[in-house]
Amino acid sequence: MSLRSDTLHKPCGQMKGQGLGTQIPDTQLMELILRLQKAIEDYVMQLETRRLWQDVVPEEGRHNEATKEQKASLIHSMYQVVNLLQSGATGGPELPLSRLSLDSSGDVGGRHQAQSSRQPDELSYQLNHLEAAFVSNVLSNHGNDITASYSSFVQTFVTYLKDNYDEDKNTSGFINLSITENKLCTGLITERLSQSDMNYIDDTLLQYSDYKGQANLREEVARFLTDYCKAPAPLDPENVVVVNACLPVFSALSMVLCDPGEAFLVPSPSYPGFSLTAHLYSKVELIYVHLNSEVTAENSRLFQLTVGKLENALHEAQLKGQKVKGLMLINPQNPLGDVYSRDSLKEYLEFAKRHTLHVIVDEIYLETVFDESITFHSVLSLESLPDPNRTHLIWGTGKLFGSAGFHLGALYTYNKEVASAVSIYGILHSIPGIIQHRLCRLLQDREWIDKVYLPTKHSRLQAAHRYVTSELKALKVPFFNCGAGLNVWMNLKEYLEPCTFEKELLLHQRFLDHKLVLSPGKFYMYNEPGWFRLTYSNKMPHLKVAMHRFSRALAEQKQALAEK
Amino acid sequence: MSLRSDTLHKPCGQMKGQGLGTQIPDTQLMELILRLQKAIEDYVMQLETRRLWQDVVPEEGRHNEATKEQKASLIHSMYQVVNLLQSGATGGPELPLSRLSLDSSGDVGGRHQAQSSRQPDELSYQLNHLEAAFVSNVLSNHGNDITASYSSFVQTFVTYLKDNYDEDKNTSGFINLSITENKLCTGLITERLSQSDMNYIDDTLLQYSDYKGQANLREEVARFLTDYCKAPAPLDPENVVVVNACLPVFSALSMVLCDPGEAFLVPSPSYPGFSLTAHLYSKVELIYVHLNSEVTAENSRLFQLTVGKLENALHEAQLKGQKVKGLMLINPQNPLGDVYSRDSLKEYLEFAKRHTLHVIVDEIYLETVFDESITFHSVLSLESLPDPNRTHLIWGTGKLFGSAGFHLGALYTYNKEVASAVSIYGILHSIPGIIQHRLCRLLQDREWIDKVYLPTKHSRLQAAHRYVTSELKALKVPFFNCGAGLNVWMNLKEYLEPCTFEKELLLHQRFLDHKLVLSPGKFYMYNEPGWFRLTYSNKMPHLKVAMHRFSRALAEQKQALAEK
Repeated sequence: MSLRSDTLHKPCGQMKGQGLGTQIPDTQLMELILRLQKAIEDYVMQLETRRLWQDVVPEEGRHNEATKEQKASLIHSMYQVVNLLQSGATGGPELPLSRLSLDSSGDVGGRHQAQSSRQPDELSYQLNHLEAAFVSNVLSNHGNDITASYSSFVQTFVTYLKDNYDEDKNTSGFINLSITENKLCTGLITERLSQSDMNYIDDTLLQYSDYKGQANLREEVARFLTDYCKAPAPLDPENVVVVNACLPVFSALSMVLCDPGEAFLVPSPSYPGFSLTAHLYSKVELIYVHLNSEVTAENSRLFQLTVGKLENALHEAQLKGQKVKGLMLINPQNPLGDVYSRDSLKEYLEFAKRHTLHVIVDEIYLETVFDESITFHSVLSLESLPDPNRTHLIWGTGKLFGSAGFHLGALYTYNKEVASAVSIYGILHSIPGIIQHRLCRLLQDREWIDKVYLPTKHSRLQAAHRYVTSELKALKVPFFNCGAGLNVWMNLKEYLEPCTFEKELLLHQRFLDHKLVLSPGKFYMYNEPGWFRLTYSNKMPHLKVAMHRFSRALAEQKQALAEK
Repeated sequence: MSLRSDTLHKPCGQMKGQGLGTQIPDTQLMELILRLQKAIEDYVMQLETRRLWQDVVPEEGRHNEATKEQKASLIHSMYQVVNLLQSGATGGPELPLSRLSLDSSGDVGGRHQAQSSRQPDELSYQLNHLEAAFVSNVLSNHGNDITASYSSFVQTFVTYLKDNYDEDKNTSGFINLSITENKLCTGLITERLSQSDMNYIDDTLLQYSDYKGQANLREEVARFLTDYCKAPAPLDPENVVVVNACLPVFSALSMVLCDPGEAFLVPSPSYPGFSLTAHLYSKVELIYVHLNSEVTAENSRLFQLTVGKLENALHEAQLKGQKVKGLMLINPQNPLGDVYSRDSLKEYLEFAKRHTLHVIVDEIYLETVFDESITFHSVLSLESLPDPNRTHLIWGTGKLFGSAGFHLGALYTYNKEVASAVSIYGILHSIPGIIQHRLCRLLQDREWIDKVYLPTKHSRLQAAHRYVTSELKALKVPFFNCGAGLNVWMNLKEYLEPCTFEKELLLHQRFLDHKLVLSPGKFYMYNEPGWFRLTYSNKMPHLKVAMHRFSRALAEQKQALAEK
């Protein structure tokens, strides 16, 4: 706020120096533009601050009143300028539009200079839409909530996407190790998808089909899960619903299982996609069950999910009057990479049955176990489920084939009512027919999956994990050592003084300054500052550059701490 | 209900006749099975009645208490039988499971006979899941609502899909003229999609991309709309959001523009997809503005939407305390095929501006105008929009390319906040990267679109429309004559005595008996019984069979009325 008086007159002086003042006869316009400029500066500053925070604390940014006021002030100034410009704009070329750069996209100080030679009615048209671009108060409360919470997250994601590291074309671009993509086998997938059987097309693939997914794809998903989840009996394709990704499965599931305000228990650190999804449509509350990063009386292993913790969380929620409807698990866990033992899994399911809770198990990280000493137990592998009627599996091919842009999300549930209700949502989350066909072919090709794809994938995951963790060891960075998933959960508390979320955010920013995107633990709803998630399933040349940047950022951070 | 006492003992007699009684020592089981059988019969009868009704009256079927009670009774009986079977099932092969046919899908009297040689634990597993399949009370209130309202609709759709007419393989299958698909040009599309430029694949197409759609696809959509909507200035790709279909655009738009319970005005008859979508996630209320099927003092044309009607509907809603947030238009209209004149369109927009309402215009039927005397005016073609900030276009390629299984839905809005908020929903409604690439290529290929595809499409639509309407004329069936869209809206009041929605339903059923699916007017929220929608954009050989069936069904109906 102390910046206000400093910046108030600077733009004015600059503009005057460039002769703007002499070109405009109307001092009213001048004044308005000054006010507008200030409103923009304040607003941008506020946004910047908020953006930085919301990258890591999305739920705390809702309905920021200060920003809203500044926005309203900005819009008001903008309106006035636009009106004045409109009234005087057709007068002649003196109007310094080139200074303001009002382009058709509504940018102020935008990408390209406005042409003073444009026709009056064209200018009026542009201004009309510029006005539209900046008028606010049109969104619902929910629309404002969503925007305040997530639009900067989406924007930031796109920013990194546009300035992506490339070893030939953009060596100074961002390396994004904050998105769980498996980029180690993309070549294998593109090769397989280029084979002739994949280019098949016929009329039925172009028409409306069963909203729960084409029958042959559902059959193939059921067969695949029967085999790879080691189900004791063949799974039923009628229990499968296939939609365009895993989050839509969760979105539909939470709508049909919970009424607004009802809650799921979720161990934390936890994948933030559930929180986002719960917020977008369904309004289910997520109650986080915080896992301990140290061995205590209660947990014999780090980050252990115990039934005691679940009981406590449930009890506390009930005391607060919250209606808990289910438990949400990810196995292998994201971000931890932890794999639940068969006994633990059963205990969680028994806990849920005792309290008549649904259990949703997200097994999207199936087939990412690269440590051969670890056995993964799918919830579908259990001989007898405590409450099959309330046990639901979410699975998808995004991590299996490392292809987030070509994938499916599937529900497997023994409850026909749930399958039926979720399948109605298929109307809004459908997959194109030709993609369903290709996915079906891919899942069918067991020869290729078992002999070519999975062995390569596992060995590459092993190698990448070995490389990244050896670098972390060399840097003396502690990490949670698991043999599954695509992420490393690491402890950077030593680099925070004091160890707070504010400092975690600053360290995150330091990585960004080094063009490295890592996710701070706060993003995973974790309650202890100092943890970061790093996705290691990236190409080795990229990983090497990334780890070099990581090491430099840490060294710089260490030095900054020492100098303090 | 009079059936109850008749059916109670019949199955018992049948089973006894087949020696079942002698195989079971336990009379308790016998009794339970009898009760179960009766509960199933009652339930199925109830369901059948409901299904027939819900095909046409989805909103009236919610929370049917009678069905709920029967369901609860059915479930209770089932539970008891299952428990008893479980307790005695491992005893030996005498248990007559083959009679009940309990298969892994949970079907009773299901597809294949259970094998008496199965292992005891396998049997227990199957029963465990049979139990799961029938236990209820797991859905949220909203889940129950959705199921009651739409699951029979979805089921029915799938039934027709499975028994689809084929001139070679299934001549007694259903011909479905109730889904607006353009099947006249599927060959052209499959041919174009089979060309080599369509099979391109690269790494980036398989990875996460911008949630609002890939930049090059959005640019292409903006260019396409600029040209085909005749926009006065180039449209901005940043105002485009691309998702997997048009309904998801509406779903997201209504979330970010309306809070639960707020409403949109919608002229009726109206596309039922909006009502379904509003119900699934967003909870926006749709207030229908009923168009008059006769010329009156108020409207000079049939089904004319006048500002007077809009004002009245708004006023009435406000009197009821409803908060109206917008007006939803479809242009060309579905099911009417009506095209709004430029002046009418402006009047609707001015009305909306006067009351600070959003206007959503769905122009998915762009490029379906086959009557050359009619000029279509896109909302994007207007030189100056009354309230650009609250004017939003929905458009998609589903009807353009007649490919509901390979398409996109797009939002074009001048309001950056709306674009930004809707784009967050892209996370749940994404299109696979390789599909985005293909759609981009297709929209780019103007040579093919303008010289091959559109001329063929328009001439085939003309021919099909000419054929169907000449048949209707021969049958003396009045219809609303428009030159756009893929549907004919026809008046069959003459075939209803009395003219009620009950009789409309029975006529619909008569068409089904003749393996012809048509949509009754009630489905389009129309308030006058006796109207039906027929989608004429089907292959000529199918249309000929369909019109033959139609004619036979009407003759039969006429005779039935005469005999009465």
